[in-house]
Amino acid sequence: MATYSTSKKLAAEFIGTFWLVLGGCGSAVLAAKFLSNGADTGLGIGFLGVALAFGLTVLTGAYALGPISGGHFNPAVSVGLAVGGRFSYAELPGYIIAQVLGGVAAGAVLYVIATGNGASVGGFASNGYGDLSPGKYSLTAALVTEIVLTAIFLIVILGTTARRAAAGFAGLAIGLTLTLIHLISIPVTNTSVNPARSTGVALFAETAALGQLWLFWVAPIIGAALGAVIYKALLATAEDE
Amino acid sequence: MATYSTSKKLAAEFIGTFWLVLGGCGSAVLAAKFLSNGADTGLGIGFLGVALAFGLTVLTGAYALGPISGGHFNPAVSVGLAVGGRFSYAELPGYIIAQVLGGVAAGAVLYVIATGNGASVGGFASNGYGDLSPGKYSLTAALVTEIVLTAIFLIVILGTTARRAAAGFAGLAIGLTLTLIHLISIPVTNTSVNPARSTGVALFAETAALGQLWLFWVAPIIGAALGAVIYKALLATAEDE
Amino acid sequence: MATYSTSKKLAAEFIGTFWLVLGGCGSAVLAAKFLSNGADTGLGIGFLGVALAFGLTVLTGAYALGPISGGHFNPAVSVGLAVGGRFSYAELPGYIIAQVLGGVAAGAVLYVIATGNGASVGGFASNGYGDLSPGKYSLTAALVTEIVLTAIFLIVILGTTARRAAAGFAGLAIGLTLTLIHLISIPVTNTSVNPARSTGVALFAETAALGQLWLFWVAPIIGAALGAVIYKALLATAEDE
Amino acid sequence: MATYSTSKKLAAEFIGTFWLVLGGCGSAVLAAKFLSNGADTGLGIGFLGVALAFGLTVLTGAYALGPISGGHFNPAVSVGLAVGGRFSYAELPGYIIAQVLGGVAAGAVLYVIATGNGASVGGFASNGYGDLSPGKYSLTAALVTEIVLTAIFLIVILGTTARRAAAGFAGLAIGLTLTLIHLISIPVTNTSVNPARSTGVALFAETAALGQLWLFWVAPIIGAALGAVIYKALLATAEDE
Repeated sequence: MATYSTSKKLAAEFIGTFWLVLGGCGSAVLAAKFLSNGADTGLGIGFLGVALAFGLTVLTGAYALGPISGGHFNPAVSVGLAVGGRFSYAELPGYIIAQVLGGVAAGAVLYVIATGNGASVGGFASNGYGDLSPGKYSLTAALVTEIVLTAIFLIVILGTTARRAAAGFAGLAIGLTLTLIHLISIPVTNTSVNPARSTGVALFAETAALGQLWLFWVAPIIGAALGAVIYKALLATAEDE
Repeated sequence: MATYSTSKKLAAEFIGTFWLVLGGCGSAVLAAKFLSNGADTGLGIGFLGVALAFGLTVLTGAYALGPISGGHFNPAVSVGLAVGGRFSYAELPGYIIAQVLGGVAAGAVLYVIATGNGASVGGFASNGYGDLSPGKYSLTAALVTEIVLTAIFLIVILGTTARRAAAGFAGLAIGLTLTLIHLISIPVTNTSVNPARSTGVALFAETAALGQLWLFWVAPIIGAALGAVIYKALLATAEDE
Repeated sequence: MATYSTSKKLAAEFIGTFWLVLGGCGSAVLAAKFLSNGADTGLGIGFLGVALAFGLTVLTGAYALGPISGGHFNPAVSVGLAVGGRFSYAELPGYIIAQVLGGVAAGAVLYVIATGNGASVGGFASNGYGDLSPGKYSLTAALVTEIVLTAIFLIVILGTTARRAAAGFAGLAIGLTLTLIHLISIPVTNTSVNPARSTGVALFAETAALGQLWLFWVAPIIGAALGAVIYKALLATAEDE
Repeated sequence: MATYSTSKKLAAEFIGTFWLVLGGCGSAVLAAKFLSNGADTGLGIGFLGVALAFGLTVLTGAYALGPISGGHFNPAVSVGLAVGGRFSYAELPGYIIAQVLGGVAAGAVLYVIATGNGASVGGFASNGYGDLSPGKYSLTAALVTEIVLTAIFLIVILGTTARRAAAGFAGLAIGLTLTLIHLISIPVTNTSVNPARSTGVALFAETAALGQLWLFWVAPIIGAALGAVIYKALLATAEDE
């Protein structure tokens, strides 16, 4: 496998995270519900469409950009891969900066589009708990949800990219895992498992989302590290790494 | 192909069945319908989203964990594979215990999350017939449905993992078969075809689901054995096993 | 590639067509709309779920059974493949009989399940035009729709199974083509493109569907032959067949 | 890889673009909303189904026809591939003519079907901004949306068809990227990113769509060229082209 320059890797992570936030949060903001003259048309894509969109950003980004950077597009994934021994800690800061910048750039582009019909952006697909949870779930429920789901996300990532795994299918499985995570947890936290995604839209939200942003850095990173530890302890074998 | 230790296999089955129940039943409990102030928002994922979620748990689990344990995540599948000659009867008890424990652990985690906004869990995505069938289908209809669908599930599993099959695509086909099974039968029994899934949530349901749990052990296991017998009698060839 | 006995091929076609009709028509009859106490719950899978179900029957059947019989599950496909030079005319009668029997068997099983809550089956997912078209489309619109869509179906089948095509992906592309065909045309004819599917449910419908069944034999077969002729004339090359 | 004659390439582009417009716009016109006696049945496929349909036209067309022509089905894609050095400028005029003719032919067939129940075709799934935007988004929002999304579309196409990419998965990733693009932007412009698609239906629309057609040539082509430039500058390496 070729090795790519740091600049190409960071460009890939910037673009991939830009795509993740534009596609996932964009579909949520623009298309989840579609009103006409203030009335619900029933044509909107709902949480199912948003879940599919988030997963497809990663599926498509992984096949397009994964060979260059690994296709993390998510600080928690980069941390988990480092804990799992698949990524170097030295590259972590650069990756995380590129991911956050990509997420924020997507938030800005989405803001321009979303306000292009005079609407206010409201929560702007930001993540939250308690009053800012879509279904008013508690801080505890939010923590459990984000930690457990990010842990499983990492187990899937580590498993599908191990040497024993079916070649080529990792991007499909990882992307669809993100879809599945959203199918479960949009009502709880609006689903983060990705601090860059949370940051990219919290900056533009008209709610108090920024004040809850800490949880969507802490919980996904704890979950990712936990998933990597579980994987190494219970599932990894020497020949497959 | 490498052979894995029993502890790794059982860990894979525990985690995979945990993921199946958390993802499939979790999406049903948390996101099938999404209310706001008691009114339906129209944003919920519906039976279609739940069907997709169940299938994606198996698709993603199969690619991540399948190389270790075979990726059964379901006592009926383990039985059917043993009947079909693809799995050893000696490993059956351990697999089934790990699967049930994984399902129950997922039920417990889901219970913590689902009650995190003060809601009661109701049926908790449990399976049922008669009064506990979503569409009030009879015991006979439930038996026919669970037996026939599990039989076809096993035929697909045995066919897509035969030597003649396209390499790598089994996880995709098997996962999407579970989605398809749910698209057909959620109204009838809430769809089991998996005793571990049924057990994992029946323990927490506020309905009389536990009293009907026997059917969701008996019918899937009969169906799985039937599918394996049909496969061996009509479709298998010596060179492909 | 191994050659299979005629009995295994016919068993595969019977089972595959059984699965197609049970899964596709079953999801339509049981789950398209889900009522509770006579009121629409909004949980039903709709035309989108039915379209997905039909496609997944073929996707999963193709990966599981395709290596044995070719995975036609459809008399029009068998005719089109014969016209395209990929299937022998001598095998055509046996295949068509197996497909129709599989479709009728599925209709019977579905009838048992669907009446298991005391409901009447109504149109039973049968195909129709004019008064029996879901959206009241004319005979002409129905003919054009069925001919054009079956023609494209055959072009996709011939193209994705040509020697030049990406190995392994044919089942995915062909199954999802059937999903796409349904996304377009359920409102027009309830979508046939498959005489065995139409026959399997028309026998049980409480409407006059049997009187219109001729169109769903004639149009798909004309369309399939047309698609094969177009493919051979415009797209085929000697080295790829 | 075999080289195909120009006539086969143009036939493949004609048929593929015909399929894209018939499938994508057809599902929108015929099935997005399904009324019965003037009342919404809730069975329609909505924007989610339309997004899936557009993506599946490209996914299925890419696997069936891609080996012949490259599977562009879109003048903007052909331009972007030429800018990216993957397609010859000399072939560009022929490809674009074949694509537009295919799109218009599909518009005509769809017109025959859609008027087959006496309905008027209205906007006929045409693209628009301002008053003709589904969600009344401004010209600026439409330009930004179409340029950014087509740019990313080209980055995915160039990335997934580079030598380093996982073999066989490009058709899947590219098709699902088009689904994702529609999940985001149907409310903004009804989603073009494809001048042939816009032209094929604008000719038949009963609205003033033709007067806005210029934008859906200009913006996708600018976006495609931009995507190719970004890809070459930031992501491409000599050994992968």
